[in-house]
Amino acid sequence: MTTPIAALGRPLRLGVVGGGPGSFIGPIHRAAALLDRRFDIVAGVLSSDAERCRSAAAALGFAGYNSVPAMLADARLDAVAIMTPNDRHTEECCAALAAGVDVICDKPLANSLADARTIADAARGHVFCLTHAYTAYPMIRQARAMVEAGVIGELRAVQVEYLQAGMSGPVEQGELTPKLRWKLDATRSGPSLVLGDIGTHAHHLACYVANRRLTRLSADLGAIVPGREVDDYAAILLRLDGGIRGTLIASQALAGTENSITLRIYGATGHIEWTHIRNNHLTLALQGRPVQTLARGDADLLPPAQRLLRIARGHPEGLTEAFANLYRDAAEAIASRITGLPADPLALDFPTAEAGVAGMAFLEAALTSRARDGAWVEVG
Amino acid sequence: MTTPIAALGRPLRLGVVGGGPGSFIGPIHRAAALLDRRFDIVAGVLSSDAERCRSAAAALGFAGYNSVPAMLADARLDAVAIMTPNDRHTEECCAALAAGVDVICDKPLANSLADARTIADAARGHVFCLTHAYTAYPMIRQARAMVEAGVIGELRAVQVEYLQAGMSGPVEQGELTPKLRWKLDATRSGPSLVLGDIGTHAHHLACYVANRRLTRLSADLGAIVPGREVDDYAAILLRLDGGIRGTLIASQALAGTENSITLRIYGATGHIEWTHIRNNHLTLALQGRPVQTLARGDADLLPPAQRLLRIARGHPEGLTEAFANLYRDAAEAIASRITGLPADPLALDFPTAEAGVAGMAFLEAALTSRARDGAWVEVG
Amino acid sequence: MTTPIAALGRPLRLGVVGGGPGSFIGPIHRAAALLDRRFDIVAGVLSSDAERCRSAAAALGFAGYNSVPAMLADARLDAVAIMTPNDRHTEECCAALAAGVDVICDKPLANSLADARTIADAARGHVFCLTHAYTAYPMIRQARAMVEAGVIGELRAVQVEYLQAGMSGPVEQGELTPKLRWKLDATRSGPSLVLGDIGTHAHHLACYVANRRLTRLSADLGAIVPGREVDDYAAILLRLDGGIRGTLIASQALAGTENSITLRIYGATGHIEWTHIRNNHLTLALQGRPVQTLARGDADLLPPAQRLLRIARGHPEGLTEAFANLYRDAAEAIASRITGLPADPLALDFPTAEAGVAGMAFLEAALTSRARDGAWVEVG
Amino acid sequence: MTTPIAALGRPLRLGVVGGGPGSFIGPIHRAAALLDRRFDIVAGVLSSDAERCRSAAAALGFAGYNSVPAMLADARLDAVAIMTPNDRHTEECCAALAAGVDVICDKPLANSLADARTIADAARGHVFCLTHAYTAYPMIRQARAMVEAGVIGELRAVQVEYLQAGMSGPVEQGELTPKLRWKLDATRSGPSLVLGDIGTHAHHLACYVANRRLTRLSADLGAIVPGREVDDYAAILLRLDGGIRGTLIASQALAGTENSITLRIYGATGHIEWTHIRNNHLTLALQGRPVQTLARGDADLLPPAQRLLRIARGHPEGLTEAFANLYRDAAEAIASRITGLPADPLALDFPTAEAGVAGMAFLEAALTSRARDGAWVEVG
Repeated sequence: MTTPIAALGRPLRLGVVGGGPGSFIGPIHRAAALLDRRFDIVAGVLSSDAERCRSAAAALGFAGYNSVPAMLADARLDAVAIMTPNDRHTEECCAALAAGVDVICDKPLANSLADARTIADAARGHVFCLTHAYTAYPMIRQARAMVEAGVIGELRAVQVEYLQAGMSGPVEQGELTPKLRWKLDATRSGPSLVLGDIGTHAHHLACYVANRRLTRLSADLGAIVPGREVDDYAAILLRLDGGIRGTLIASQALAGTENSITLRIYGATGHIEWTHIRNNHLTLALQGRPVQTLARGDADLLPPAQRLLRIARGHPEGLTEAFANLYRDAAEAIASRITGLPADPLALDFPTAEAGVAGMAFLEAALTSRARDGAWVEVG
Repeated sequence: MTTPIAALGRPLRLGVVGGGPGSFIGPIHRAAALLDRRFDIVAGVLSSDAERCRSAAAALGFAGYNSVPAMLADARLDAVAIMTPNDRHTEECCAALAAGVDVICDKPLANSLADARTIADAARGHVFCLTHAYTAYPMIRQARAMVEAGVIGELRAVQVEYLQAGMSGPVEQGELTPKLRWKLDATRSGPSLVLGDIGTHAHHLACYVANRRLTRLSADLGAIVPGREVDDYAAILLRLDGGIRGTLIASQALAGTENSITLRIYGATGHIEWTHIRNNHLTLALQGRPVQTLARGDADLLPPAQRLLRIARGHPEGLTEAFANLYRDAAEAIASRITGLPADPLALDFPTAEAGVAGMAFLEAALTSRARDGAWVEVG
Repeated sequence: MTTPIAALGRPLRLGVVGGGPGSFIGPIHRAAALLDRRFDIVAGVLSSDAERCRSAAAALGFAGYNSVPAMLADARLDAVAIMTPNDRHTEECCAALAAGVDVICDKPLANSLADARTIADAARGHVFCLTHAYTAYPMIRQARAMVEAGVIGELRAVQVEYLQAGMSGPVEQGELTPKLRWKLDATRSGPSLVLGDIGTHAHHLACYVANRRLTRLSADLGAIVPGREVDDYAAILLRLDGGIRGTLIASQALAGTENSITLRIYGATGHIEWTHIRNNHLTLALQGRPVQTLARGDADLLPPAQRLLRIARGHPEGLTEAFANLYRDAAEAIASRITGLPADPLALDFPTAEAGVAGMAFLEAALTSRARDGAWVEVG
Repeated sequence: MTTPIAALGRPLRLGVVGGGPGSFIGPIHRAAALLDRRFDIVAGVLSSDAERCRSAAAALGFAGYNSVPAMLADARLDAVAIMTPNDRHTEECCAALAAGVDVICDKPLANSLADARTIADAARGHVFCLTHAYTAYPMIRQARAMVEAGVIGELRAVQVEYLQAGMSGPVEQGELTPKLRWKLDATRSGPSLVLGDIGTHAHHLACYVANRRLTRLSADLGAIVPGREVDDYAAILLRLDGGIRGTLIASQALAGTENSITLRIYGATGHIEWTHIRNNHLTLALQGRPVQTLARGDADLLPPAQRLLRIARGHPEGLTEAFANLYRDAAEAIASRITGLPADPLALDFPTAEAGVAGMAFLEAALTSRARDGAWVEVG
């Protein structure tokens, strides 16, 4: 059977927004988009300065525009990939969607639940991929599929952590990099830096693997570095659908930590554990049996993990491949929209604007809980 | 200079209370007491049935008594070691202390803060060692000394977990072992099983290493196994002295877990991490420098860790040695009391009845927070 | 200063030889070539069947040729990347080099020392990159630089292992995949399968990091799976330049193993250890000090590692990036040849045909030692 | 049924030889002997100086003698435990055995194969336990039982390493500790220090778990620290019964190493791996299935491991318990000899004088191979 991509017979035309010189995330998005050759990056808005944008884009091999509307009007795009500061997402996403162009957007979706809902409304009927790339690791897909298959029994509890060190020092007092400048400006990075930046990742990871929505929370939220005006620490008590208990800890100010993401999901008969630093493996501990370490490439992984296999077992993959998995599946969905041919259903398990709405609902509920001295709050 | 132990010139006479046939903790206490030959176990109350007690004690090589008063009256003890169910501690501790006999007692100290205070009052002027054995691991002593020395800078946050699996199944429905029978009976095991059983360990571990008191908390406390009437799950948001934030997670119902205890203490310039399964090592991660793995036996450990070295670096020690460290130091203190010679100050860093009072204050504050739907509560 | 790549102002034109449908290594080479956008893959010889080649190439987006000469004659290439079975390398490399086209070639370089020398002779004055990709991991470059800088003192010993499981079963008795078919045919895979396939990797890895040549060896070489006619096991005692002792263990028949590559280099004052499964880290154990775990992205890595950083610390990279590091540096060298501008000296530390010659000298010495019942043999 | 120990109704009377003040191994032996209360240490020869011996013994709570004959004549012993330098073992073992006293002896059994055979001859009909304590770890017993049960299929290969750092520096140039003094004196420590000291441990470990005898070897043996006159490095190619291939690497001069012992046994369908630093666990990797980590205390361990369980799963045990396992089983055997009651067959799986003979045969074969420039040599 012909796949949408094969039927299309050409790479998709992608425009990028943001990720210019000095960006951390820009090169990852571009490498991911190109890795499977399903996209050509043909255009980009890398700066609002026309000349700077042109030269940066030229160096990267595509056409530069100094505004999203200009690019949308001119570049005959199939999709845009948006990796600007959070406060730009709503306008840029809506512009693209209004122009009939599908969207791949970095997280968090927006800086408010209202904005997120605006985007989600606009995205209806379009392909929209929110790049929570951690849930595109094969072993995370395996974890989700195992939970779904009942391998660990009825769910009992979840624990998720996202720990970083980048803001453990008094970064406000040094010279600010462009990235730090917008992050430390709450009008750009949103009402809770730690939650927007990494808390939404942790929230999405737990909900995605458990396949449950967050329903209530009680949050301890603030700054652990003296004098800091943005949040750098969150410890949140959770309830997921069905009354499942959980905890979420996120901080960017834990000195000595190495971008540590850990997820544990406990069921009646066992638990699974995954940690970013060993992304190619997954621990399965069934009560009363030896702990098992599943590896990417193992013969009996479930289909959602198996299909993502790129390099054979024992040859490590990294974040680039995880990001590329999202781009590859988004390409399948976009090609399906264009050609009208059905997409592989397993390819459609990427986070959409709805995941972004859920993330902002989580964030706003945490703010409300803080405002009420940690009271339990329903999540919108 | 003559040490108290050397001056005494004989092993201390120890009587044990509890830990009879089938007990988990009894053999550990007895092996720990004997390992350094500072105690002779000369008497014990292993059962209230006179005949059963006599035969059990005979098999272990000491004299059996069917009550604590009987043993105290007859056995010329220097100390008793109490390892009965929690609800017996107050009466037994007070009886021994009233008889002028020093006490080594298993945790939790009691089943209420009031009882704990009664014991602590009675213990004034006596040697009292509460066997929070995890804080007697050499690398935990190293961690505490490093925090004290400022190695990781001003404290920022603590995270402590104590995760077990023993009650992840529907244990209430099977035949109850004697141990399970008293644990599942709240009149014996206290008002919150998970907190008394392992939560107090986690609380003590965090406070001991951080060298800070817990001041406030907000608790999520309950049972995650359907139909269970005792608590098997606790997730608690913490504030330590000076406003240090933290989290404590404890559960006995997390299927597949292997008695996992993990502590992380974060400071302004780095953090330390210790996990029970690798008790002979300690991770030190200083911001901007390679992560270091300190090992028991390393040349430059600080004195509180160095003095506990038994077997050379690279030869693993386990829980028996940790317990024995408490007994050895308690022996030093007891011999000091008897001989009047000063004890090595480093030997006096074991948990006392005051640690037990702190543990019960923690437990009762958590109960109060639960009763108030998770509100922040001051810790007595 | 203008770099050769910038001065060139266009991607290099690359033709691929081998790596057609079903190939394990083909997709890795192609992804690596494209990741940094310094190459365009414009042509390929994927099959000797003209039609099959054309369609396979078309599906991958480049022009198909049914022979290397045809491609060389027509495709205006700057370089070819050769990933055919070993027995094809000599002819294909020499054809390209004779046509003035630089070569990137998979290992082992050839199936005999004589052939390897033929290629190395032909490669003189050209760019030639042998894709021992494991030595292009950043932390391996760090290891080499640290050894060079004397961090672990004068060298004492090396230990290297390459352990696989793919041939632990009786693969000869099942249906052979194309890859297995040529590997099990000694006329194609060479006189010692295990040494050609993975032993040369282990040899190169040890010599590259130690920065020493192998001088003597004593080999135990054979098959551990009963009835097997090709070698699947090698255990070799080593002497490197200066009398450094070592061991090399390689096998493809160790059931349950996950492509495990481990290197340890010992010096007078410490050692380093690296293992493939944790490619983003490197262990440094200095005598009398805590063991250190260096991470890709650490602030104070040495320049040869620092320059390879792609994604920030804590975001795992994998084999694709290691391969791409070779391609990127080969591109620098090729562009330097074309433009006449000097290449970054740090970019020229990739394995060349000389490494391939060393690998075949190692392999033939091992064969000689086997023929002499394990006697010590000088390496060519 | 009455056990020999129960029937005996008293602790066994043990005399110790060696292990005086400053000894590394003395405290371990004594703690191990006492842990299970099956032995009383009633006498000891800690020094040939009568006064020093008396005071050292008194401090440890037993009677001091200044010679083995004197102790044997006077102390009514059931057994002696010998932990003197190797060159004393033959005389001391034979004296005890001639006196009808059973022997527990540290390794290596002797300094020559001839002496080892003399002891083994004398030991016939007596209980003789050689304290290769590493094979008394529960998870090593589990490994042996699993190999025996065919869990990993027909054996294919073994790899064993014993790596230490204590002699990585120029220890000869400093002030020698008593321990170093006799170790550096080949007339006392034997003809190959590294093999006697740790090589015999590695040899025993591999042969014990594989349950195979070593038949042939080819050895690379010498010193890697310049100027050293005793061996500190051994890399040995092995053949076990049935032609099983293997490697053994042992060195005391690998800077930065932490007493690292690793064993891997490969079979047709999987392998097992154990490493000393994680003695409470065992890796089982079956081809095509997730890697399993078995833990001491797991419900389904095989009887030889299950019976050694002391503390519940998740509570680490260490070297003291491993040593104590040997003493406990030796006690069972000794009590059986005294009472005439049958011992538990599972208790009789400890290393005897025959294991010591095998160790010396291994050592002498390695010396022969070295003398023949690494030729393959039959093991006596």
